[in-house]
Amino acid sequence: MEEYPVWKHTARLADGREIIYFDESPSLGREKVRDPRDLGGPAAGAASQLRWDPLSGDWVVIAQQRQDRTFLPPAEACPLCPSAPGRPTEIPASSYDVVVFENRFPSLSGAGRGEAEPAGTGPAAAADLFAQRPGTGRCEVVCFTSDHDASFADLSPKRVRTVVEAWVDRTAALAALDGVAQVFCFENRGEEIGVTLHHPHGQIYGYPFVTPRTSRMLEQARQYTERTGGNLFDDLVTGELATGRRMVTRNDHWVAFVPAAARWPYEILIFPAERVPELSQLDDAARDAFSVLYLDVLRRLDGLFGSRAPYIAAWHQAPVTADGPIRAGFALHLQLLSVRRAPGKLKYLAGSESGMGVWINDIVPETAARRLREVR
Amino acid sequence: MEEYPVWKHTARLADGREIIYFDESPSLGREKVRDPRDLGGPAAGAASQLRWDPLSGDWVVIAQQRQDRTFLPPAEACPLCPSAPGRPTEIPASSYDVVVFENRFPSLSGAGRGEAEPAGTGPAAAADLFAQRPGTGRCEVVCFTSDHDASFADLSPKRVRTVVEAWVDRTAALAALDGVAQVFCFENRGEEIGVTLHHPHGQIYGYPFVTPRTSRMLEQARQYTERTGGNLFDDLVTGELATGRRMVTRNDHWVAFVPAAARWPYEILIFPAERVPELSQLDDAARDAFSVLYLDVLRRLDGLFGSRAPYIAAWHQAPVTADGPIRAGFALHLQLLSVRRAPGKLKYLAGSESGMGVWINDIVPETAARRLREVR
Repeated sequence: MEEYPVWKHTARLADGREIIYFDESPSLGREKVRDPRDLGGPAAGAASQLRWDPLSGDWVVIAQQRQDRTFLPPAEACPLCPSAPGRPTEIPASSYDVVVFENRFPSLSGAGRGEAEPAGTGPAAAADLFAQRPGTGRCEVVCFTSDHDASFADLSPKRVRTVVEAWVDRTAALAALDGVAQVFCFENRGEEIGVTLHHPHGQIYGYPFVTPRTSRMLEQARQYTERTGGNLFDDLVTGELATGRRMVTRNDHWVAFVPAAARWPYEILIFPAERVPELSQLDDAARDAFSVLYLDVLRRLDGLFGSRAPYIAAWHQAPVTADGPIRAGFALHLQLLSVRRAPGKLKYLAGSESGMGVWINDIVPETAARRLREVR
Repeated sequence: MEEYPVWKHTARLADGREIIYFDESPSLGREKVRDPRDLGGPAAGAASQLRWDPLSGDWVVIAQQRQDRTFLPPAEACPLCPSAPGRPTEIPASSYDVVVFENRFPSLSGAGRGEAEPAGTGPAAAADLFAQRPGTGRCEVVCFTSDHDASFADLSPKRVRTVVEAWVDRTAALAALDGVAQVFCFENRGEEIGVTLHHPHGQIYGYPFVTPRTSRMLEQARQYTERTGGNLFDDLVTGELATGRRMVTRNDHWVAFVPAAARWPYEILIFPAERVPELSQLDDAARDAFSVLYLDVLRRLDGLFGSRAPYIAAWHQAPVTADGPIRAGFALHLQLLSVRRAPGKLKYLAGSESGMGVWINDIVPETAARRLREVR
């Protein structure tokens, strides 16, 4: 099988941020393009902080500078559209396929610039109740198409495949930066979950610590192996295939099911049939097969209520800092969740979820799976 | 000091649910009142389930029957108002002070009815990836006033004190039920966080397990004592008093501050100056002082943007099942959080929070505290 062809070109925006084009055809003259804007230098003095929450043992990001980020601009002022004469945007090109650039309003920044402290999960002094450190890391934006009105579900399988190549490339690039402990590729879609730009795009975060969710997943996997000798993720996928009651769709390379203990009205986990710890280890056939299956799943989600569903799509990958056996035992998977529980009704996090961490889900997971299977 | 006088009367609603009046005056003839409605017997076959999430190690509540709960009824159909001639509500009385009753659409039910399994934190078989058990527990509604249009912040200090007595009473009552491991008193306020009934009310949950948030807090407290010999909560409050930078308000018995690692735009922790593990151990003076301080804090929260703030107020108490030293070391506190970050702008949980458990807060906690202090 031939390698999937993507033409990659890296440049700099006016304020020094990196921009990386992933083109589906060669010779587009990207090297001749300059960002004409006057943005000043990199924003100074507005970096984020990490603060230690001693009651939960988690780091929290305090990102003051994001309070003033671009908020639901009209379509003609969209910063993610290609540039047009007299209207320069974040992308100094008249069209693009997939493009990635450093976020102008990053929650985390500065990784790889010699500012990083060692990645870790707790404060240096265990007794330091008010520990803080710089919000080192990296935040990138991924534009999926230059079509402002499209959504991910409208992409061609070929384009999804190009997005996969961009995720793989950026995961490796961010993982290589000093101070990045974990790379997270995700998409937020829909005003209902706070999306501030409508243009179809996702994000990539390089965190300077292993995240709480991933830490707990690794701990659960470790305990499971200790007790049973098996691999938690393998046994979970095998179990879901065996019952079939929560299956949404599958093909030779991927399995999509609603988890038995789904927290959200519509939540779908998508695992490769053969476990790998991160996106880069998917072979060409698996990458191709993902493009087809994921579009099918998104179409089903949008089809549930006959309109675009608000959703979060979150890629779980092994942390950069995980050592050999832990890394090898982790299973890459995509978590797709929607907060819409019925037409016009959303699932909110209220007292039980926000105060106590106990999720209450009104939709029985087997029912959610059946409804998703039945979407025509 | 005299004991604060509350007249308590317990009765049953038409379908057998308990209702408990907490009156500020005696001899209201509660014993003569009957619920005239025909509600049928207790709802059958629609009980919740607990499902084990093997990737996080947490129980999730699947509560199908709540999907059809009453959703934003017009004021004239409010089920929490007192009954009127020809319009029976959930409260078969023409007025009330504070009243508590079992939720008609409970997320958890059946505790104390001989159906309970032993409380615990994990499935019986460690290898059971699809463990589930009945959603045993108890859910109660607390109406703070018969005035439909009021909010908690409008209550008199005396009424807040009556609410405290109701919380204390119900915490003890639910803790005594078989199968309840933890009691949680809370209030959700505002459509922005999904409140489905406007009438001022809170809720009380009796969970059949120790919640994830509390488990982690107990574990952090244990580790802190192991490392330093001190008490995590005491040292936290002492540290906040020492710096003062995040203080919102205080009196002789209570301290209200924004936590250094606040997750939410406006988050306030309210601790008693003298540590106690649960509400019942507050003395009369502390209960009186709470009423005054809490009204001041709520007024500041509403005053930030000049309109009623959406908020969640969550009482953290020691679990029923915690043993002696762990129980004694826990610190009762109220967590008050608002998702509003600016007029018309809410904080949503997006990919970082929902996918990875990493909260990103746009408001610097010291700034939040200053703004709250400055509210006139």
